[in-house]
Amino acid sequence: MYGNGNGSLALRRIGIDTYRENVVYIHRDCAIYRAEGFQALSKIAVTSAGRRLLATLNVVDDSEIVTPEQLGLSEQAFVEMNAPEGARVHVAHAERPSSMDAVRRKIGGERLSQLDYKNIIDDIAGHRFTKTEIAAFVVATAQNELDREEVFYLTKAMVASGERLAWHEPLVADKHCIGGIPGNRTSMLLVPILAAHGMLVPKTSSRAITSPAGTADTMEVLCEVDLPLDRLQLIVREQRGCLAWGGKANLSPADDVLISVERPLGIDSRGQMVASILSKKVAAGSTHLLIDIPVGPSAKVRHMAEAQSLRKVLEYVGHRLGLQMEVIITDGRQPIGRGIGPVLEARDVMLVLQNDPEAPHDLRQKSLRLAGRIIEFDPDVRGGEGFAIAREILDSGRALSKMNAIIDAQGRRQKPLSLARRTIDVLSPSSGVVVAIDNFQLARIARYAGAPMEKGAGVDLFRKVGDTVAAGDALYRVYAEYSADEKFARVLSSDNSGYTIGRIEDIPRAFVEP
Amino acid sequence: MYGNGNGSLALRRIGIDTYRENVVYIHRDCAIYRAEGFQALSKIAVTSAGRRLLATLNVVDDSEIVTPEQLGLSEQAFVEMNAPEGARVHVAHAERPSSMDAVRRKIGGERLSQLDYKNIIDDIAGHRFTKTEIAAFVVATAQNELDREEVFYLTKAMVASGERLAWHEPLVADKHCIGGIPGNRTSMLLVPILAAHGMLVPKTSSRAITSPAGTADTMEVLCEVDLPLDRLQLIVREQRGCLAWGGKANLSPADDVLISVERPLGIDSRGQMVASILSKKVAAGSTHLLIDIPVGPSAKVRHMAEAQSLRKVLEYVGHRLGLQMEVIITDGRQPIGRGIGPVLEARDVMLVLQNDPEAPHDLRQKSLRLAGRIIEFDPDVRGGEGFAIAREILDSGRALSKMNAIIDAQGRRQKPLSLARRTIDVLSPSSGVVVAIDNFQLARIARYAGAPMEKGAGVDLFRKVGDTVAAGDALYRVYAEYSADEKFARVLSSDNSGYTIGRIEDIPRAFVEP
Repeated sequence: MYGNGNGSLALRRIGIDTYRENVVYIHRDCAIYRAEGFQALSKIAVTSAGRRLLATLNVVDDSEIVTPEQLGLSEQAFVEMNAPEGARVHVAHAERPSSMDAVRRKIGGERLSQLDYKNIIDDIAGHRFTKTEIAAFVVATAQNELDREEVFYLTKAMVASGERLAWHEPLVADKHCIGGIPGNRTSMLLVPILAAHGMLVPKTSSRAITSPAGTADTMEVLCEVDLPLDRLQLIVREQRGCLAWGGKANLSPADDVLISVERPLGIDSRGQMVASILSKKVAAGSTHLLIDIPVGPSAKVRHMAEAQSLRKVLEYVGHRLGLQMEVIITDGRQPIGRGIGPVLEARDVMLVLQNDPEAPHDLRQKSLRLAGRIIEFDPDVRGGEGFAIAREILDSGRALSKMNAIIDAQGRRQKPLSLARRTIDVLSPSSGVVVAIDNFQLARIARYAGAPMEKGAGVDLFRKVGDTVAAGDALYRVYAEYSADEKFARVLSSDNSGYTIGRIEDIPRAFVEP
Repeated sequence: MYGNGNGSLALRRIGIDTYRENVVYIHRDCAIYRAEGFQALSKIAVTSAGRRLLATLNVVDDSEIVTPEQLGLSEQAFVEMNAPEGARVHVAHAERPSSMDAVRRKIGGERLSQLDYKNIIDDIAGHRFTKTEIAAFVVATAQNELDREEVFYLTKAMVASGERLAWHEPLVADKHCIGGIPGNRTSMLLVPILAAHGMLVPKTSSRAITSPAGTADTMEVLCEVDLPLDRLQLIVREQRGCLAWGGKANLSPADDVLISVERPLGIDSRGQMVASILSKKVAAGSTHLLIDIPVGPSAKVRHMAEAQSLRKVLEYVGHRLGLQMEVIITDGRQPIGRGIGPVLEARDVMLVLQNDPEAPHDLRQKSLRLAGRIIEFDPDVRGGEGFAIAREILDSGRALSKMNAIIDAQGRRQKPLSLARRTIDVLSPSSGVVVAIDNFQLARIARYAGAPMEKGAGVDLFRKVGDTVAAGDALYRVYAEYSADEKFARVLSSDNSGYTIGRIEDIPRAFVEP
């Protein structure tokens, strides 16, 4: 990095949200801009009173936005600069971050060292990479697949890039699902069951990014999830568990930056996936971790061999990081539970906790199975006894009491949220048996209907794989709040309902034991 | 692509130049924004009266910039939308362009088909790729090196992405240098020599992007270079040649988009380089092309083997495109000529044309050699006679007359530009012989001094490789207009002058015959 900033400019906050990319606005007639020979989209270093920030240049022709004597910063950049409006700031060219050399070596097919990964991740977390430089790293590491040692280096560097929570207990349990299965809200059942057993389960979750609901979105139907860290720690101490949004804690911030580039590109390589999952868990202070890999033709992981290879990398890297880990492969052929969307999924969870006869059986069974495996991390529990313990906690109502206590502690929502007003019933075109439900298509319909932004929007499944239907029977109901959303979900679901109706012998066999 | 735009917004032009990335500004309280569930940096499709544009979303909190009822477009996007302020526009989510599937297959190591390259380039030229998607393509094709058939497909698709000039003559000559050598302004000598010989040389050049001067920047010292296409064609018809800026003609526009991502990343793979060069030349209507590959330790191409391999790909793809091509490998161990920077390089060119005894010999010799090879494309010229013909045209003053006629036709600059006011003489630290001059470092010093933005800024070399110097002798003079530039060029040149002084036997041997 270098700079030959002559003179200074007055800082101005520009009310433009450029998300994770810092943008600096400079007027075309600004003397410094002209002297420095900046070009639009150049990367610029802005300094003020010892603080330094890198940002992408946008050139402004309108003095209402910035004058030639001012330097504007987009919202996030202004916050990060942490200087008042009017403060004197200097600008200079920013050179490429030095770790881009390592990225170029990776593009050339080299294996990178622990130090290379540390430098790259430090530069990414420090916002010294542009979006295109991050994309270069993401593609380079996706294309020349990282070996498991490199994945370990990457994960370790990502953990080190942010805060790390300490719970001061020998067993801090957590669970992660590889994803891609709509519904599947098992965490909201695991946490009350495990906390009722006495295990520490400080669960922090993300909001949905590409799915119709995340655990945080769904828990938010019932109570507050956006909690300051000190209150979270108090709740966990008292209740042994929580179900909160993890966005506040600055855990593995490089992961958030990488994801903001990976998602739009649709690139999610094995190495990046493992580093993303494990860095977040280690930073959150977990010691014991269960990972669920659902496998199915429309799940994220489609083949058993792929699941097994992913499992090996997870186990290797988890072990190197000092995690106690179990990886299980589950049936990912269709959504788990009936509801897809925050209100509908919260309903399913509460039905299971209430031991309601209408509760979705598959959600209950899967949650008990996962809970059982985690309970067996407890040294006092014999192998094989976990499932029965979990079932007893659920059947006795202790899990429900614990859930209510956690909801109250986090701040129960006073007025319950209701389902969206507009509905579409999607009907079976023929008689037969449901042989397949496309996870991806159902998630897409729920999103088009408005989930997760509209919490009451989504899809409620009336039939699952193996059920018999007559022509004209409703397969599922779509809920939408707005007419535009309704219209679009209607077009999408009539184009492709996501259901295949056939004969019982057409049902693909489960990839795993149920 | 899909859309469920409900309602419309009023178009507003936002005076922000976001270069090659379209940006759309929407207020956070805009009802459509909320209903659609857009996120900052989402890609949005904007439609108005049948026109459609993709842009990246910036969310605005300041109603002075846009109100909740307006939709703002950045400068270039507004121009591209081609609708008046206040026009009703609709917005919708933009899905990933379908050709991103092919990019993902390339990341997975596949060879892509002709149709894949066509679809990718169409989407890139149509601004349907985001910057990160373009970076993914650039890295994927750099990492899994394209085979020569793929390079041909890519080049062909790039030609088809824009306009194609037609000169209606059987021999349209052009020359391209791979670059990386400061000075080296041979095109400005080739064009008058070849045009005086009667060959058609409609030369369009770029401005400098990372170098201290391009042919267009240097020609601009003498005359207009930014000419409308019809005037350019008139000049070429009358003079047989021109030296203009090619930016107006929309030749291989996908190349410009790719370069805007490749340069900041510092990625320039062989396949991309070949496609970039040849697509521009074919689109410009060239039929006969000479390519100069300078080789040297601080040139773009460092080793003879690399130059040979590049030459083979150029020859193969050029042949498939129907070009008559010669590729020559030249000595790239040091700058060609004395001046580095527009005014200084224009001076060198004019000295050679005027047959001035002070003219830099190496620039004269190299230009004659290149001109000779191109003259031999003329079926009436015997092999080996080109050099003598070129020399006769230069020595007789016919090249100078032709250059003056071209300058007058393009619009001679009335007031000559002068050198920058501030100078630094960089002195030799010891006595001996100049054994090496670092092309990259000299280019960098000239840029820091202000070239090419300040046309009078740059570096004037007093000594070249092989020259004897005494300690304290000036090696070169830096010219800068502004004190900040002077200061910074001083720091850079005193840190590393770019010169190595040693013994005559330390001079590395030329990679090629002189």
